Amino acid sequence: MREIQGGVCAALGFKAASYAAQIKYTGRDDMAMVFSEKPCVAAGTFTTNVVKAAPVIWDMDIVHNRGIAQAVVVNTGIANACTGEEGMSVVRETAEAAAGALGIKTDEVLIGSTGVIGMQLPVDKLKDGAVQLAGSLERSPEAANASAKAIMTTDTHEKEYALETELGGKTVHIGGMSKGSGMIHPNMCTMLGYITTDADISREMLQKAVSSIVTDTFNMISVDGDTSTNDTLIVLANGLAGNEAVTAEGEAYDIFYEALYTVCLHLAKEMAADGEGATKLIECCVRGADTKDNARILAKSVIGSSLVKAAVFGCDANWGRELCALGYSGVTFDPTKVDIYFKAGDHELLIVRAGVDAGYIEKEAASILAKDHVEIIADMHMGDESAVAYGCDLTYDYVKINADYRS
Amino acid sequence: MREIQGGVCAALGFKAASYAAQIKYTGRDDMAMVFSEKPCVAAGTFTTNVVKAAPVIWDMDIVHNRGIAQAVVVNTGIANACTGEEGMSVVRETAEAAAGALGIKTDEVLIGSTGVIGMQLPVDKLKDGAVQLAGSLERSPEAANASAKAIMTTDTHEKEYALETELGGKTVHIGGMSKGSGMIHPNMCTMLGYITTDADISREMLQKAVSSIVTDTFNMISVDGDTSTNDTLIVLANGLAGNEAVTAEGEAYDIFYEALYTVCLHLAKEMAADGEGATKLIECCVRGADTKDNARILAKSVIGSSLVKAAVFGCDANWGRELCALGYSGVTFDPTKVDIYFKAGDHELLIVRAGVDAGYIEKEAASILAKDHVEIIADMHMGDESAVAYGCDLTYDYVKINADYRS
Repeated sequence: MREIQGGVCAALGFKAASYAAQIKYTGRDDMAMVFSEKPCVAAGTFTTNVVKAAPVIWDMDIVHNRGIAQAVVVNTGIANACTGEEGMSVVRETAEAAAGALGIKTDEVLIGSTGVIGMQLPVDKLKDGAVQLAGSLERSPEAANASAKAIMTTDTHEKEYALETELGGKTVHIGGMSKGSGMIHPNMCTMLGYITTDADISREMLQKAVSSIVTDTFNMISVDGDTSTNDTLIVLANGLAGNEAVTAEGEAYDIFYEALYTVCLHLAKEMAADGEGATKLIECCVRGADTKDNARILAKSVIGSSLVKAAVFGCDANWGRELCALGYSGVTFDPTKVDIYFKAGDHELLIVRAGVDAGYIEKEAASILAKDHVEIIADMHMGDESAVAYGCDLTYDYVKINADYRS
Repeated sequence: MREIQGGVCAALGFKAASYAAQIKYTGRDDMAMVFSEKPCVAAGTFTTNVVKAAPVIWDMDIVHNRGIAQAVVVNTGIANACTGEEGMSVVRETAEAAAGALGIKTDEVLIGSTGVIGMQLPVDKLKDGAVQLAGSLERSPEAANASAKAIMTTDTHEKEYALETELGGKTVHIGGMSKGSGMIHPNMCTMLGYITTDADISREMLQKAVSSIVTDTFNMISVDGDTSTNDTLIVLANGLAGNEAVTAEGEAYDIFYEALYTVCLHLAKEMAADGEGATKLIECCVRGADTKDNARILAKSVIGSSLVKAAVFGCDANWGRELCALGYSGVTFDPTKVDIYFKAGDHELLIVRAGVDAGYIEKEAASILAKDHVEIIADMHMGDESAVAYGCDLTYDYVKINADYRS
């Protein structure tokens, strides 16, 4: 397994494009397209929010009912959520425009939107954008990177990653891009994620891998506790690598799984670190839990605590907040058994031993918290299960960004 | 039912005192005592956090196993949570010191603490403080007010309230004080609340009333989503009003219930409005829900959303965030049926009709959100149940306070 360049264009047969449709943002690209020269099997996971944006409803139908797609069109600025029938029409017309220009079927065009909820989209700009995108597709690291930039909202930088691995003697590529930042929380954070691969894998096995991987990657990140209406992760596989098709569990599936997991984890951590206003990535590793589910719940409770996040921002080793967040997670445990460590790089410090102050040196703890990647480790001493959750600190800028997001 | 002065001293036979023990704060009182000249029946509710502070463990034993108490001693500055055996000793020794000075039983002295978690308390200061408090008790509005001030942490002002009502021809008084501010959330917010009454009521009926009332008052407020290790609500009834004892449901119980409910709701709303860094009180009223529990869950989801809170702070009518928060609450509903109104005073504005923009005027919505008491009303059109949750906006000052709480 080897990291490579090319993001969403790293896999054979995938092209990308971006375009400034001026939907809401000006002076930047705000639409992107990903296209595969061959129809792909499509897998995905979507927001659990009862309120689903129009493009989510459209994509879920394609992914869950047919599982075949060849293109993705994404816009930023307006989320197309809470937009009723008009919103669904915008999605349909955009897909039709893209399909016409690309010479493919309308119901094989996936749509993604992110931005303000409740506002209607200018359908003509979207349709024109789709046609422009179709005309400027190319397979290059530059096109992939420009697409990753075009799907950003309050992200401070684009997120893309790609790697290659060997599958039965053939080289397989997996690459992806994502955007995150605000409204990021457990059940499919507010994120858009698009991953492409030239692996040959059945739709069933691809969906199986995606559903499992999401649980320990994208669903373990939290920025602000809000689950968005638009969260979407799509994985497209076009089979051009020429490997023997992966149609069942086994060695080939495991290799593919590990590679896809690595891409998803990389993108998830980048999103957590780039949460709105964030100055650092916080990882909470819970170990010694009695069940895997409880480990996940405990880790997410800590990473989601506003008080923990604010304390880390302030480099304040106020460890009671971690213990407190473990305590209200809903998981039962013995507080007098819990150990807590703070860690940055190789520097690990025991903060809490058996539920009480371990006698650490305050200055040493503060120096760990001052790093831009801080790990909080909680050992529950109940069993052997562990989980890691990813988040960021809570800062003045988070409030600033969100007190005036629309204007 | 009539509002009166006197807070925790409003009821017959109750005295209060405050004292500067310099436990952590300087230049202010940081200990308070409430004492009844006659032993009281005691009822209460406590944090659901698995990690419970030493005084919570002590109080739960008294309230749940014996139900008799005559005094309360409270300190601020240090929470006595995650302090192990040493923490329990501090509680016991403080109760012993108070009991000795007051001439009552040690196990009839309730203890409350709030402040930093994980730090040990200076036991000598606590014991000395308890003795000083016992020597300066008096029954006066001034003593009650000074006590309400002494239990504050990051609160910007003291919270107290009292009223009187008629019970079978006798005047009954109910008064209380509370502190809140940070770490305030649903399952017994981080709050300390002490309510006194001279009503004659059985321990069973008092606990029944308290448990029920808490669900719609203190448990419906949220400041930051963190449930503390120390949350405590205690209600003491000494029977000195001379009413016929309330020992079963009926008219007298209903009158008492309504009065206690009014005191609790008043204190709860004051705590929500005085959340750390808050500039305004936000009420979310969910109506038309299918069940009462679902109404509560929906209302709390909106009031707990960081994005909603930040938008209200910025006077931004970004209503998609309310709909989004309803959507991820876990309650199933039809988004295309939901109406949302913003309201301040008599000014009510329809923002969302049937899940989409109702065509309101942006400036009018902003003017409502600029008020210091904002109501968000969501009509689910699913049934007849309703609930109200109370919270506050998310501001720069919240981050400031919590990024550097201990120093």
